[in-house]
Amino acid sequence: MNRVVKNQRNLEDGYQLWLRYAPVTDAPTLTAYRTAITQIMINASSATLSIAQEEIEAGLERLLGVTVPLAKQPDRSGTLVIGTPHNNHVIAELKLGQALDQVGDEGFVIVRTVFQGNDYIAIAANTDIGNLYGVFHFLRHLQTHKPLHDLNISSSPKTKLRMLNHWDNLDRTVERGYAGFSLWDWHKLPDYISPQYKDYARANASVGINGTVLTNVNANALILTKQYLVKVAALADLFRPYGIRVFLTARFSAPVEIGKLDTADPLEPDVIAWWQKKADEIYELIPDFGGFLVKANSEGQPGPHDYGRSHSEGANLLADAVAPKGGVVIWRAFVYDENIPDDRAKQAYDDLVPQDGMFRENVLLQVKNGPIDFQPREPYHPLFGAMPKTPLMLEVQITQEYLGCATHLVYLAPLFKETLDADTYCYGPGSLVADVVDGSLDKHVVSGMAGVSNIGTDRNWCGHPFAAANWFAFGRLAWDHRATSEDIAEDWLRMTFTNEDRFVGLAKAMMIESREAAVNYMTPLGLHHIMARDHHYGPGPWVKGGRADWTSIYYHRADSTGIGFDRTPAGSDAVSHYFSPYREQLSSRDTCPEELLLWVHHIPWQYTMKSGRTLWDELCFKYNSGVESVRHMQQTWDSLAEFVDVARFEHVKGLLEIQEKEARWWRDACLLYFQTFSKLPIPPEYEQPAESLKYYQALTHYYVPGIPERRFG
Amino acid sequence: MNRVVKNQRNLEDGYQLWLRYAPVTDAPTLTAYRTAITQIMINASSATLSIAQEEIEAGLERLLGVTVPLAKQPDRSGTLVIGTPHNNHVIAELKLGQALDQVGDEGFVIVRTVFQGNDYIAIAANTDIGNLYGVFHFLRHLQTHKPLHDLNISSSPKTKLRMLNHWDNLDRTVERGYAGFSLWDWHKLPDYISPQYKDYARANASVGINGTVLTNVNANALILTKQYLVKVAALADLFRPYGIRVFLTARFSAPVEIGKLDTADPLEPDVIAWWQKKADEIYELIPDFGGFLVKANSEGQPGPHDYGRSHSEGANLLADAVAPKGGVVIWRAFVYDENIPDDRAKQAYDDLVPQDGMFRENVLLQVKNGPIDFQPREPYHPLFGAMPKTPLMLEVQITQEYLGCATHLVYLAPLFKETLDADTYCYGPGSLVADVVDGSLDKHVVSGMAGVSNIGTDRNWCGHPFAAANWFAFGRLAWDHRATSEDIAEDWLRMTFTNEDRFVGLAKAMMIESREAAVNYMTPLGLHHIMARDHHYGPGPWVKGGRADWTSIYYHRADSTGIGFDRTPAGSDAVSHYFSPYREQLSSRDTCPEELLLWVHHIPWQYTMKSGRTLWDELCFKYNSGVESVRHMQQTWDSLAEFVDVARFEHVKGLLEIQEKEARWWRDACLLYFQTFSKLPIPPEYEQPAESLKYYQALTHYYVPGIPERRFG
Repeated sequence: MNRVVKNQRNLEDGYQLWLRYAPVTDAPTLTAYRTAITQIMINASSATLSIAQEEIEAGLERLLGVTVPLAKQPDRSGTLVIGTPHNNHVIAELKLGQALDQVGDEGFVIVRTVFQGNDYIAIAANTDIGNLYGVFHFLRHLQTHKPLHDLNISSSPKTKLRMLNHWDNLDRTVERGYAGFSLWDWHKLPDYISPQYKDYARANASVGINGTVLTNVNANALILTKQYLVKVAALADLFRPYGIRVFLTARFSAPVEIGKLDTADPLEPDVIAWWQKKADEIYELIPDFGGFLVKANSEGQPGPHDYGRSHSEGANLLADAVAPKGGVVIWRAFVYDENIPDDRAKQAYDDLVPQDGMFRENVLLQVKNGPIDFQPREPYHPLFGAMPKTPLMLEVQITQEYLGCATHLVYLAPLFKETLDADTYCYGPGSLVADVVDGSLDKHVVSGMAGVSNIGTDRNWCGHPFAAANWFAFGRLAWDHRATSEDIAEDWLRMTFTNEDRFVGLAKAMMIESREAAVNYMTPLGLHHIMARDHHYGPGPWVKGGRADWTSIYYHRADSTGIGFDRTPAGSDAVSHYFSPYREQLSSRDTCPEELLLWVHHIPWQYTMKSGRTLWDELCFKYNSGVESVRHMQQTWDSLAEFVDVARFEHVKGLLEIQEKEARWWRDACLLYFQTFSKLPIPPEYEQPAESLKYYQALTHYYVPGIPERRFG
Repeated sequence: MNRVVKNQRNLEDGYQLWLRYAPVTDAPTLTAYRTAITQIMINASSATLSIAQEEIEAGLERLLGVTVPLAKQPDRSGTLVIGTPHNNHVIAELKLGQALDQVGDEGFVIVRTVFQGNDYIAIAANTDIGNLYGVFHFLRHLQTHKPLHDLNISSSPKTKLRMLNHWDNLDRTVERGYAGFSLWDWHKLPDYISPQYKDYARANASVGINGTVLTNVNANALILTKQYLVKVAALADLFRPYGIRVFLTARFSAPVEIGKLDTADPLEPDVIAWWQKKADEIYELIPDFGGFLVKANSEGQPGPHDYGRSHSEGANLLADAVAPKGGVVIWRAFVYDENIPDDRAKQAYDDLVPQDGMFRENVLLQVKNGPIDFQPREPYHPLFGAMPKTPLMLEVQITQEYLGCATHLVYLAPLFKETLDADTYCYGPGSLVADVVDGSLDKHVVSGMAGVSNIGTDRNWCGHPFAAANWFAFGRLAWDHRATSEDIAEDWLRMTFTNEDRFVGLAKAMMIESREAAVNYMTPLGLHHIMARDHHYGPGPWVKGGRADWTSIYYHRADSTGIGFDRTPAGSDAVSHYFSPYREQLSSRDTCPEELLLWVHHIPWQYTMKSGRTLWDELCFKYNSGVESVRHMQQTWDSLAEFVDVARFEHVKGLLEIQEKEARWWRDACLLYFQTFSKLPIPPEYEQPAESLKYYQALTHYYVPGIPERRFG
């Protein structure tokens, strides 16, 4: 079927992301906006304010269809005033001091007010970057056609470090990347700087992302050499006025690999000196360098354990090197032993909790949302709440390594929220993961959230047209984890596609149902880690052999008696890492949420679920529900053709067809495989598998994006 | 220096290549066009004609600023009639039979004429694809503001196969590619077909390119498996109505690698049967599959020599497999022995000339423009003229592996023309390479030209904004090798940038001077193959060690007595491969063109050149001239800012700055190195080298685009 789209000259291609500033077509709204905004007063006395001015001028021109002029004085109604009490006398006179005191050095206040007889909208902040965030928020307000009467917004970010992690390699491949290749054209940096980097900065600033790690956690020491640092500095210079600081991954063995030392032992004076000198070199080039992100002693990466030292000793080595200039070290908690002594879900906790309080003040631990690895559903990571003395950052995966790779529409805000809103009970009820992450629970000054980026060289940045919603949502939740998945989806849809209510309502519902759809057609009822080996593309519940905790059978434990991983006290007792009453809730089959049942229990095939179905039948039901959900998503999307430009409509439609095919593939392969244990029929009311188990097991995919393995010849 | 460009909404970014159809702003021209073209008469009864209709409608609308309607009858003046005598009665009545008889099955006639009182422009052809080519030609005519009175064009291609060779790997890396990564998104094919592929087809059809090899000559047998063939078929289906046939590279060992046979011996019945079956499988999916391009027994690729068989035996094996369905085999003549028995410049000739006449009718040999490897200047390949019984295709390199990689502006039409216009003298004077290549010299039915593509995922397709001119020029010369570099450059500039004469004149001069500039700052006076090892980025005249003919010293042979490779009878006698009088002309120092002097002779440092300078001083002069040329190009470009959109202006400006830096790098490194042999000073009137020889020799570059070597760690 020819998916080719007529070559329309004005093809929307997704490049403008959610910053299209599409002309406001609703006449009353347009009139109200034009009346309320007749001129702009801003004193662009810094690079950041120049950027803010450029953005507001361009945005308003496109939205309102008129050039909104700059004004030196607010001499008529409808002045949009942007500034701080220090650089703008109108802002000062509006006496927003009390409000501004609440919003800190990144927040802003937006009010509509009358002053000396004239109607103003004021975007006020304590700093220039606060103003830039305010401008983007205001433009979002207009893009989503929100009303301007009674405008009274105060906003400040709940977490301090709101970061992207690019798993980008220096050869421009992107690990687990499905949107082409790495944005960073190292070969031409620092001399040539692509205009796209400016749009990257704009997009991030528009959702308050203020940090970016440019390199893969599977690190390459070369990035720390002068040759590359000058390239990094060029990017840092570009990003700085957007409020974005640059971080790098530090390969722990760099003192050996590029320093030519004999060791990288964190307690060795030479090594300490090397890192201090290296940090000084970096700060010479990049005065506001954010710091290092480190993956150590995990999946083959070097680290302090190589020298018999602890994680905290390793982290502190680097922390001391960057502390003088205000840098931080973000130490990834994704660690598990090569020798698999215990349930993988327990290992990070067992390794790190005893070291609580042993890390320097400027060290954060970056903790994945769950204790295995970014599965479609995991319980929250037990480290949250268990290390009160250490600032813990949340790491979520925006790129869809386990959620459909390049081809599935899966809106991830519900997944991110599920973790953020979870109660750790560490101080009793109301000790939410979000409160750990934003530092408020344990009064940490530094805090953060990181998202593994889904950005690449594909024209629309993220591959699937809907994948950009996850970048957007991550930024929105890093700023304010209390935002809802629905509101974020609605904003994104209005900004990215159209404000037509019918479209927004239906597309939003489609997005909201997509995460559970994926859980259902991939890993329902608490199943996890049953994907194909290495490239993780497609199902592989039969994967066995080699490292046990890199197989599938290790995690589902299907046998003739049932399926599921016993993490109760009778099993690995991973539940003991949680606080009461969650621990007990999980431990009992009767109270364990069914969506995590097989995460915690080994359940017999004939076990009766809440629905009345047996476990086996429930699995069949869930897998088929997932496929049905995708079909429902397809029907929804088809019904929205009139609201969407042809190119993007066809793009999403084409990918939904692939998603439906792949959902059936997951369903059929998994049910056939588990059936070899259950020995029960797939109820006849469901579609029967298209092919045999042998067929699915024989499927081989080469050159799946995002992973260099599985080459041929 | 901040190279960042203001984010203009209507940013030209090069995506539209030379098909921008920019509105005609010159008032008289616009009036003339609108008067001459008031309606379109075309019977879009095929996919090709639908495409032609879409293109002419869209093109005219943008160019003329009005919608030019379709008409069923030519009932008023200014009808643009498009068709063949068989599908359009007006075309039939215009009695263009004689002209159409001359233009074959791809050509077209465009005439302006009066018929039955009405003024027509007729685009006539014998086939639908001829009409499509005619439409593109006509649109080019308008884009370049050419007059429509006395319109009388007959055009038909001189070579039959006009092909791109994509050195694209299945993991989407592109060997020697500097424009990002491979266009072909195999992971999503065949289900999702990017709209970009349609634009690829349009761009190629617009310059008459009618074939594309999708895969690297360093081949991967996987492309011949069903899993991949269905993906290839999806592309072939898309390209077909644009007149573009798909070809694939065939890995000679495929019968072993994917067929699980024990051998790939071309004379083994099982192997013969395997290829026949494979060809049948391909033709089932792709009825007009073009055939195979093969690199065998060269640089590690498998081939017939592995079984003690000849090139012709290998080629004929594949030729017989595809012959029944009209396919061809294109066998690359780029062969040289691993054991280096003789001057590399002689090896292809010595291997292949004895096999003239031994290849099947449907085999072409694809011969690089020169006998080494795409150097900035080479004499034409001695195979041209030496194998009258075998159709020889010309292979040129559009991607700039040896001509500046990603960062140099080098217009290559002069290089292509230099080869095409060269006289082989094989039948006396006037036996041009072009006449060999177009088949006319030896009356071959099949003929062709191939260009190693410079296309990738970069937004502007080719990386450097001016690199697209080389794709354009290749197509134009494949269609008509008598076109001039100047005319092609002028067309491209007018279509890509603007028709402003001042701009066109200066930018054209800049393009025309650029090839010689590169020769001068890299490899003047016949020097060749002195670039850095492996990645070929930057100078490496000191490269030695390992395979001799992969070093630099092998080619320049600099020593205390002089520099240059003696290819006269006193040396390797490679000149003997040329016909008289060229052979003699080269053999004597006095008559050898100075631009090839060191290609053929080992010349003393103090030798007096025609300029009166010594050889050493001439080298210094040439290298410095090259740098001066780049500076002149920079000045020219700077003077053209008013004519060019900001984004593309800044992009070219930034890359010219890099080019100037790299020209100095080449100059300084090469002169310092050769100076260690000449022991003569660089004349003081020139800039002295910025750094020491040691410095240049120590420079190490990692992850240079286009080559997977030189990894770190």
